[in-house]
Amino acid sequence: MTLSQEQIDRYHEDGFLVLDSALDPREVESLREAFERDCETPGPQVVPEEGSNRVRAVYASHQRQPEYAGLVRDPRVLGAAKQLLSDDLYIYQFKINAKPALGGEKWSWHQDYVAWQIADNLPAPLQVNVAVFLDDVDEFNGPVIFLPGSHRSGLVQQSRKATAKSEQHLDPEDIALSGAQLTELVGRRGMVSPKGPAGSVVLFSPEIVHGSGPNMSPFARRLLIMTYNDSSNLPSWSGEPRPDHLVCRDTEPLRQLDTTFLAALQGAAA
Amino acid sequence: MTLSQEQIDRYHEDGFLVLDSALDPREVESLREAFERDCETPGPQVVPEEGSNRVRAVYASHQRQPEYAGLVRDPRVLGAAKQLLSDDLYIYQFKINAKPALGGEKWSWHQDYVAWQIADNLPAPLQVNVAVFLDDVDEFNGPVIFLPGSHRSGLVQQSRKATAKSEQHLDPEDIALSGAQLTELVGRRGMVSPKGPAGSVVLFSPEIVHGSGPNMSPFARRLLIMTYNDSSNLPSWSGEPRPDHLVCRDTEPLRQLDTTFLAALQGAAA
Repeated sequence: MTLSQEQIDRYHEDGFLVLDSALDPREVESLREAFERDCETPGPQVVPEEGSNRVRAVYASHQRQPEYAGLVRDPRVLGAAKQLLSDDLYIYQFKINAKPALGGEKWSWHQDYVAWQIADNLPAPLQVNVAVFLDDVDEFNGPVIFLPGSHRSGLVQQSRKATAKSEQHLDPEDIALSGAQLTELVGRRGMVSPKGPAGSVVLFSPEIVHGSGPNMSPFARRLLIMTYNDSSNLPSWSGEPRPDHLVCRDTEPLRQLDTTFLAALQGAAA
Repeated sequence: MTLSQEQIDRYHEDGFLVLDSALDPREVESLREAFERDCETPGPQVVPEEGSNRVRAVYASHQRQPEYAGLVRDPRVLGAAKQLLSDDLYIYQFKINAKPALGGEKWSWHQDYVAWQIADNLPAPLQVNVAVFLDDVDEFNGPVIFLPGSHRSGLVQQSRKATAKSEQHLDPEDIALSGAQLTELVGRRGMVSPKGPAGSVVLFSPEIVHGSGPNMSPFARRLLIMTYNDSSNLPSWSGEPRPDHLVCRDTEPLRQLDTTFLAALQGAAA
């Protein structure tokens, strides 16, 4: 899966790019199994829902599960990220959000890079997010909504609100855009929320304005987001750094696999 | 606008029926103006958003604004309701929900008739809801979501939760279906949320399970819901009745206009 010049242009124009059914059902199944396995590994990287023991999110699974270690190096994923960004990339953040059934609160409209600049002094927006649908995504289960082209507006809302509560794990509400800012951006090119079968991939800019509603369906909706960062663009902290499950410390450029992650795993097992 | 037999059958099969652009733009504009005017009438029928003076909902506007007095008697609306229900109908409840921009919390999955049975001892589900889009409705501004066919499942969740907070003005959360109940119903026929331009009309059963997400857009989304009730099926209260802006006391069968509400108004003004 090499991106065409048209796809690359569209990513830079819109701030996101959808690759329908980029992974096949067997691959999706292996990623789901690895997620279930990883949920059982105790540690701060497993974030439960408030007032529940159901899993809300798991971080840095690529450091523990071979399927995800392979996926971040899969030529279809790492290769595409390189085409959009630069040659030397590492995983800055890896998370699986399990938007729970009949819940999973909405995420306010925000730009990722604003959070990373505040929390990690990340020098420049030299990242690309690669989202993988681990479940079918439809209009009812809280799909991510993008404002196309908004990544070319600079940082719209740079500072945290006075009411900001979160410290290390920045809440999007703390850096949410105002109604006036949104009205202006939505007026230009509207809103778009990519949907599709499990295995679909959405590449998106760290500067694109996005948000999402709650999951109104009675089924969980698991979404993997891998954030690649240019390995010359490193975070730094004046005080306590964020935990290493939130901000990965291995900044060595990733070596691309020769084949897909599942083929590589099965080759290794043979 | 007489409903065809096919439309009537679909309503009874699905529990709802969509009439795209049933009202024309001039009519929609006159209804919006009447709403703005009605928001200025002080009284308990104007419900503000929590912690704000923005209007969240207005009740019983048909008792004050001639446009709405006409609309509830408009042959396209009252006529369709009669075809679906019975000949002698009156307005049991009339409300305009202004789902505010970037807010308007989600409504939990519920059946209207459960609330009316609890709050008003309404003997039978002999109602039809007529919803009119006063703004364009899309996937982003909190459209109502229906579970098709669920109105034929009886009352799924009949009693109020122990945690119920609301007294007279029943909160859908108090009678929300459980995850297991929803999984079963969604598994049968999925979820559907009608969208369309302002002026579209959705007729829906008092027993259909429905809910809605928040309004993620920076624009308000105004939705009018007129609930017709059979005039032989009257509410009664053992204690304090609900206020008359929530439950209309005029139970005389409505007389249908000969023409559309706007033509009738303009005729009256001529």
